[in-house]
Amino acid sequence: MQTAGMAAIPMILSESVEASPKNDIQSFSDGNVILFQGDSITDAGRDRKRQLPNDAHSFGNGYALMTASPILEQFPEKQLQIYNRGISGNKVYQLEDRWQEDCLDLRPSVLSILIGVNDYWHKRNGQYDGTVEVYERDFRALLDRTKETLPEVAVVICEPFSVDGGSAIGDGWQEEFTPYREAAKRISDDYGTRWVPYHKLFKEALKHAPASYWCPDGVHPSMAGAQLMAQAWLKVVMG
Amino acid sequence: MQTAGMAAIPMILSESVEASPKNDIQSFSDGNVILFQGDSITDAGRDRKRQLPNDAHSFGNGYALMTASPILEQFPEKQLQIYNRGISGNKVYQLEDRWQEDCLDLRPSVLSILIGVNDYWHKRNGQYDGTVEVYERDFRALLDRTKETLPEVAVVICEPFSVDGGSAIGDGWQEEFTPYREAAKRISDDYGTRWVPYHKLFKEALKHAPASYWCPDGVHPSMAGAQLMAQAWLKVVMG
Repeated sequence: MQTAGMAAIPMILSESVEASPKNDIQSFSDGNVILFQGDSITDAGRDRKRQLPNDAHSFGNGYALMTASPILEQFPEKQLQIYNRGISGNKVYQLEDRWQEDCLDLRPSVLSILIGVNDYWHKRNGQYDGTVEVYERDFRALLDRTKETLPEVAVVICEPFSVDGGSAIGDGWQEEFTPYREAAKRISDDYGTRWVPYHKLFKEALKHAPASYWCPDGVHPSMAGAQLMAQAWLKVVMG
Repeated sequence: MQTAGMAAIPMILSESVEASPKNDIQSFSDGNVILFQGDSITDAGRDRKRQLPNDAHSFGNGYALMTASPILEQFPEKQLQIYNRGISGNKVYQLEDRWQEDCLDLRPSVLSILIGVNDYWHKRNGQYDGTVEVYERDFRALLDRTKETLPEVAVVICEPFSVDGGSAIGDGWQEEFTPYREAAKRISDDYGTRWVPYHKLFKEALKHAPASYWCPDGVHPSMAGAQLMAQAWLKVVMG
């Protein structure tokens, strides 16, 4: 986007995120659909009674808004339709439950998925008994189902992350959560999707300010953290 | 911010907004305060029970969020405190009523004000009898009062705007509203403030997509319009 004063700074990005050599959006047809899917990080307080594309109230105030808005700003002629259908608390099997109406029916050209932290967190706190194997199996099944209906969809898998020093990140969290991140990466590699390395991004960000600045509880990003996530997504997907 | 794919596009900005030669934020001290003030366009659905700096729920989902977030992302070491205190429906005299607690007490280093569309709109629809002279007089009084308490504050005046083709922009609107925009510009010139030319910006944007894309009712920007406003603000203030 940017002006001289702002252009000097994205050091955190240059240290942690590789730009894609290919720009999906540039090659889009008019009216193509981009869909953000996930849990509370994606949901970000959106008004779920509205399910409108390109509508701020339907987007909440998180990384999905901050990712979609610059795309809409910069490609007005494309008439893109961008949706946020993240729902707080979701684990991967809950995406599966609502996948027909909240993904397949929308026929996205780009599908971005950020899921996994609740698959671990809810197990950790005794509300859920799925393992990392269940997470990986269900995530793969979700992509198989997606590819069957939408063989041309460009999938973006966003790495589930947790930020050291966040108030919810207790003893053993990072060690136990790492296999979920690794599973997501394996899936991304096997399905040939775009990959947004959020865990690495936040590790880099911690060199500049503590978790309280980027992601106070270690799970839900601040404004600064959400903006960083948006920039990383744009770099990976827009090239 | 930006990557190659996204860097090519800000033509709307380059055609309508001049970058400032001076970058206020770069010269800030740690912990400095930036304050966004205005009406519904600034408010943008923020949770007014929270009055927190750097907090997405306290910011809503409009241009203030989209302006503040990249600043927070890119200057983590500055520990800036950024507030949104816009309130829906406000006219300039209503800023005056709450100026002590919602501006002066916060001691901003940068104060951004976007006010004026309701001063006209509410008069147009018979809910208010202030004239453009009242708007200008009260706006100047507000700045005098601000400068008295905060002689060092850098003021940014955002041009009040209305977008041709918006559903609320009836016959005669633009002609009758123009004097308000002109008054704001005179004030900006007289007080030596930064000036964000939003009316010009949206006129330029209309070359690429209609009002329904940027600002459906002509007053309240869409996601795309809010992002454009944020980029313009950053260009003017960040240099």
